[in-house]
Amino acid sequence: MRDVAIVGVGHSKFGNRFDLRIDELAWEAASEALKDASLSAKDMEFVVVGCSGGWSAESLPAVICSEYCGTLPKGSMRVEAACATSSAAVAVAYNLVASGYVDLVLTLGVEKMHESPNPVQIEFIGRAGNYFWEFENFGMTFPGYYALHATSYMWKHGLKEEDLAEIAVKNHHYASKNPKAQFTKEISVETVMQSRYVAWPLKLFDCCPLTDGSAALILAAEDVAKKITDTPVWINGIGAATGTGNLSRRDMHLKLEYSGLESAVYAAKQAYKQAGITYNNAAKHLDVASVHDCFTIAELMAYEDLGFCGRGEGLKLVREKQTYNGGLIPVNLDGGLKAKGHPIGATGTSMIYSLTKQLRQEYGKIGGKEAQATIRKGRAVAHNIGGTGHYAYVTVLSLEKPQSGSG
Amino acid sequence: MRDVAIVGVGHSKFGNRFDLRIDELAWEAASEALKDASLSAKDMEFVVVGCSGGWSAESLPAVICSEYCGTLPKGSMRVEAACATSSAAVAVAYNLVASGYVDLVLTLGVEKMHESPNPVQIEFIGRAGNYFWEFENFGMTFPGYYALHATSYMWKHGLKEEDLAEIAVKNHHYASKNPKAQFTKEISVETVMQSRYVAWPLKLFDCCPLTDGSAALILAAEDVAKKITDTPVWINGIGAATGTGNLSRRDMHLKLEYSGLESAVYAAKQAYKQAGITYNNAAKHLDVASVHDCFTIAELMAYEDLGFCGRGEGLKLVREKQTYNGGLIPVNLDGGLKAKGHPIGATGTSMIYSLTKQLRQEYGKIGGKEAQATIRKGRAVAHNIGGTGHYAYVTVLSLEKPQSGSG
Repeated sequence: MRDVAIVGVGHSKFGNRFDLRIDELAWEAASEALKDASLSAKDMEFVVVGCSGGWSAESLPAVICSEYCGTLPKGSMRVEAACATSSAAVAVAYNLVASGYVDLVLTLGVEKMHESPNPVQIEFIGRAGNYFWEFENFGMTFPGYYALHATSYMWKHGLKEEDLAEIAVKNHHYASKNPKAQFTKEISVETVMQSRYVAWPLKLFDCCPLTDGSAALILAAEDVAKKITDTPVWINGIGAATGTGNLSRRDMHLKLEYSGLESAVYAAKQAYKQAGITYNNAAKHLDVASVHDCFTIAELMAYEDLGFCGRGEGLKLVREKQTYNGGLIPVNLDGGLKAKGHPIGATGTSMIYSLTKQLRQEYGKIGGKEAQATIRKGRAVAHNIGGTGHYAYVTVLSLEKPQSGSG
Repeated sequence: MRDVAIVGVGHSKFGNRFDLRIDELAWEAASEALKDASLSAKDMEFVVVGCSGGWSAESLPAVICSEYCGTLPKGSMRVEAACATSSAAVAVAYNLVASGYVDLVLTLGVEKMHESPNPVQIEFIGRAGNYFWEFENFGMTFPGYYALHATSYMWKHGLKEEDLAEIAVKNHHYASKNPKAQFTKEISVETVMQSRYVAWPLKLFDCCPLTDGSAALILAAEDVAKKITDTPVWINGIGAATGTGNLSRRDMHLKLEYSGLESAVYAAKQAYKQAGITYNNAAKHLDVASVHDCFTIAELMAYEDLGFCGRGEGLKLVREKQTYNGGLIPVNLDGGLKAKGHPIGATGTSMIYSLTKQLRQEYGKIGGKEAQATIRKGRAVAHNIGGTGHYAYVTVLSLEKPQSGSG
């Protein structure tokens, strides 16, 4: 297994991007990544496009984005894993390089969610559970699933709606400093509490928005990476797991009683094992994290699923503001899905973009000094969920090369 | 790079499969592959699902198929490359194993095309070119693109409609012997010639059908493969290329004047290079081929794009019946897309299923003695196209392990 590094990153402005076609939006991120790595599109040997698809009228987004970015005739494909789509694309790109098949891969995450030509696709998120059983029979939709997680957590650990609001406040706070974020205004606990219910106890300000956006990463083999950059960010571990599509089977293994995501626990343990990090108290090995906060409750569960703290202790992290910068483990210093935005296919690469900038200590140039984590351990983790734990991808990044043979 | 072998293969009945849901259809192939390898679902370490998606009401086919096949909580993802979808999935699975990330991967191709819930998806194939430019402005659809290829070939090399009909006759002949094929009746040149025009000069019987179906492959690392089977079929080369979505740019590089697919030539050369096969007269290195005959003209172009013969000489192969079994290079002995059927996401894995059976000299048990190629060189090639050359994936299989370090 060859070691693989991220040698270039780019990120579009997130938000309503009616100004660009999907291929132009992809180029906004890809061009920045190429510039960051001082490479040209012709240097790319493969293009992996994360795009959940169906939102755009273009049926073959990987082709038109590759073409617009100038990588033809190099091979390409589209990868999909619901909202974890571009973390899956990173896993593909990582293995294309780690195997020795190619040396340089452009990994593009891109989604345009505001111009679906297609009524069924507008239901897409609602259907992204177990369609025939839960959607058709019970009318379960996405906020409903996460509302169940929230009520379970309330019952078990005394979570209050105001605690969830604090997570939204934090993420809007950091988004307000990130010029690439969709939402740029600070909010207060009152803003959240006064917003309308979407699915009790989740209110509008507990939910992430629909977003257009893109983020790009260039992955390189060790020998090549060292020629390109003095600050390669190594991929030290990738964990991937799949969760049942059927709510009634969710508690089969880990007995989380619906206040955590089994798949995320599996993926975290796998990624940590590969990276040589212990699961219990994982936070002590890490400087910063990006977690999948599609709803505020999802961020809270992620703290525990990632082993930052024990079950029920995530609430304490929120109340003590331990996931602000300077706390035990700073989380979503770019604003997260909640406020930076959540363009499904671009979210994974966007997380890794932010963490790469953090590890290189360049994030301050984007989000200001207050949002640059202190880098002591040289490690960061991205936690990207598809569906309601149907997919989980956890990626560990490091300034240190993987231990030989383990990477 | 670790060597990778196919150690188990399975294939569903192709056709109108209203009798099964998509996950049940996936299991029809996966269960056969697991049985073939004497493995259980729990042995799988990752699942890569090729599914072009959108045809089924299920938004997350990789999750529900993985769950039904019993592989949870192992990681999974969906891969898409239009009609080359499951060849791209094989490329992903191959690299997951070659890198050392995992040892055993279930690669599933599956598609249900007869129950799209979605009017836009019924247009999907029509849109699978350059949507905004060619579909919207000129009304180009899929048969139209391939009709242009046919007229170009007619103009350059004296191709007649009857020659194309001969390709359909061959593929229906072999499909009639394949119990898993969609079409089971022999046809004559007259059948084709008397069928109605779809896009001149292509008639109904020059076109492949819409199909429901699945095919599964289990890929294993060398050490593991040798414990599982005495007849591993090695992946010796994978070529992948991307073609422009814009017709007017198609002749930029190789000057094929629209009677070949540039991307297929690139992909073939890459796969052959990896496998140590020379491109010119490649047929002499190979026992059997599966090529992408979505239209009869596509098979003819494939002969030349794969280097089986020079430009314009494919026609001679047709007229001399050199692509029947016993000829220079037997092609589509399972009936091809044309008559076996073309369930988009399952076509690549279906090709590799047939070729694996051929190389193991077990295909006769399926399609009869007449359809079992003579295996002398121990090598076969699969040629899988997405869109109209937007994607090209070429895979070389062999009874011999790749040369050390080249594999």
